[in-house]
Amino acid sequence: MILSDTIRAIVPIDTTLLAKAQARLDRLTKPVGSLGRLEELAARVIAILGAEPSQLPQSMVLTFVADHGVTAEGISAYPSSVTAQMVWNFLKGGAAVNVLARHVGAQVRVVDIGVAEDLGRPEGLVVRKIGYGTKNMARGPAMTCEEAIKAVETGIKVALDAVKEGMTLLATGEMGIGNTTASAAIATVMTGQPLERMTGRGTGLDDAGLAKKRQVIHQALTVNRPDPHDPLDVLAKVGGFEIGGMAGMILAAAANRIPVVLDGFIAGAAALLAVAWQPRCRDYLIASHVSDERGHAPLLQHLGLAPLLDLRLRLGEGTGACLAINLVQAALKVYREMATFQEAGVDEALPPTR
Amino acid sequence: MILSDTIRAIVPIDTTLLAKAQARLDRLTKPVGSLGRLEELAARVIAILGAEPSQLPQSMVLTFVADHGVTAEGISAYPSSVTAQMVWNFLKGGAAVNVLARHVGAQVRVVDIGVAEDLGRPEGLVVRKIGYGTKNMARGPAMTCEEAIKAVETGIKVALDAVKEGMTLLATGEMGIGNTTASAAIATVMTGQPLERMTGRGTGLDDAGLAKKRQVIHQALTVNRPDPHDPLDVLAKVGGFEIGGMAGMILAAAANRIPVVLDGFIAGAAALLAVAWQPRCRDYLIASHVSDERGHAPLLQHLGLAPLLDLRLRLGEGTGACLAINLVQAALKVYREMATFQEAGVDEALPPTR
Repeated sequence: MILSDTIRAIVPIDTTLLAKAQARLDRLTKPVGSLGRLEELAARVIAILGAEPSQLPQSMVLTFVADHGVTAEGISAYPSSVTAQMVWNFLKGGAAVNVLARHVGAQVRVVDIGVAEDLGRPEGLVVRKIGYGTKNMARGPAMTCEEAIKAVETGIKVALDAVKEGMTLLATGEMGIGNTTASAAIATVMTGQPLERMTGRGTGLDDAGLAKKRQVIHQALTVNRPDPHDPLDVLAKVGGFEIGGMAGMILAAAANRIPVVLDGFIAGAAALLAVAWQPRCRDYLIASHVSDERGHAPLLQHLGLAPLLDLRLRLGEGTGACLAINLVQAALKVYREMATFQEAGVDEALPPTR
Repeated sequence: MILSDTIRAIVPIDTTLLAKAQARLDRLTKPVGSLGRLEELAARVIAILGAEPSQLPQSMVLTFVADHGVTAEGISAYPSSVTAQMVWNFLKGGAAVNVLARHVGAQVRVVDIGVAEDLGRPEGLVVRKIGYGTKNMARGPAMTCEEAIKAVETGIKVALDAVKEGMTLLATGEMGIGNTTASAAIATVMTGQPLERMTGRGTGLDDAGLAKKRQVIHQALTVNRPDPHDPLDVLAKVGGFEIGGMAGMILAAAANRIPVVLDGFIAGAAALLAVAWQPRCRDYLIASHVSDERGHAPLLQHLGLAPLLDLRLRLGEGTGACLAINLVQAALKVYREMATFQEAGVDEALPPTR
């Protein structure tokens, strides 16, 4: 079975490389530690890859797209039709993730893992539909257990294809009207924290909309009773196809010793599932940013991940991840291109004052 | 007089452009406001420039370098010799600011505005020495009033040269062993906040070193009694040549309607002086990051500037500013390259739930 094989293939990162990389960083012409999180980032990426990279990572954003039956309950500020429309926007390169990925030299791969419409086979779209949107989780499970496995395994396969093509860094992306609702449900179950804390305004609900969304999630959890100890059960009952896909890609990347840059709240929900399957994959995750979506900060805290950016983003698609890819590149360039004290003939720090 | 002419030439930014730019941002295919600070940044840069730019800003980091007589008191973890050594490192491209400027496509211009050594006239170095380091401010004024004016006017001239060469975005940079001591003194005077709050470990002092540094700053303020209502007096008594240079470049950039990306704590001290001369120049400032240096956060708060990044940097040189230039570029690309709802045929938000 692909899923269990992938989980088994994930090895711990080589922590001796963290110290080794830091030792070089400490010889560069700057006060020790003065590049803060850039230094931490360089060391982590090197430890994940298992070696100092000979070139900058080849980066790809995998943007998984799917619809959510729960939109029937009126939990989003946008109509479901936007999911499919945004796929066309992605393919034409006009969405925010396209702009920001180009900016950092990353590719965007768009995966239809469950859009409610038939989009045909346009160039550039990877069609791996598990279904035409999930079912309404407020009335019963969002998907079958088989579909949940299929979603995760699809994510694994899509990630493996990217790795085969030479990618050495993957970033999560997603689009799907209704998916902050599914993510809040997953986050509530997986973190054990209050539903209110995990549920935010998504694409821009007003107070009444937010109250409604919380009530719908409460109903979904009551109707389905997902088992917090079984990530597959949680995904099937209150998840989404794109969330399963992202969980799978995280596992596959970790199994291939490739860093995964997490985007926002929905990516975080996928990470909760992946980490539940295999806690080791946490070490392969880079939290790009903390978003304006209410549940994101406590979710990251639960995962033990410190976000790199806080720019009040709440768009998804992989946008925040792109900005963090830029920081990864900057960190690795610092590591590779800066002169050491010795090379530059610069004096090192004086002995302590006492 | 160049200084007063420059101050007079600074006009308020065109705030109608903020709203106009936001109106376009709101038509792009994303929930309104969902790119958070990137949207704010795009609108601000457009309002500063006075028009939507037809291309990305041409960016230059001006790295002013000078020595500080107060190092005689033993207030730095590094010897003064490092200032001149780092100039050679800058010229060879091996310092952190070189790496990060290359990363974002910005130029670095290194200005010897008062290094204690004679560096000759090597290629790439702009030599505008006001003196061979400042005097020890713990014993008397760091420089004469005339030197202070000359430092600021040098910054103005260097910035004007950059503008003449086609630069449309300037970033502050600096290097000078001892300059967090001068900056903490300036910040204490200009913000009226406690010396302890404004004084940090610089390049890495231990507790004893920090206590000593605070005592030296206290002495400098007692000996000199700088007048908080007279920025030139403050600069002369407890400042530095590179700090004066940066204050001048901020004024010149604002007078030419060009955004200034502020680097760290020392740049912040220069900004305090510039804003005291002309409060309008605040609107031209972009705070790149909040550093790990203790006084930086309260200093930015005093200026009313919200930093874009928090990566625990504390290196200076212009390094944090480079990372923020990347965000400016990303913001402007979003503004220019994203499709509108109409162009992409994407439905807009539903009416509110009630």
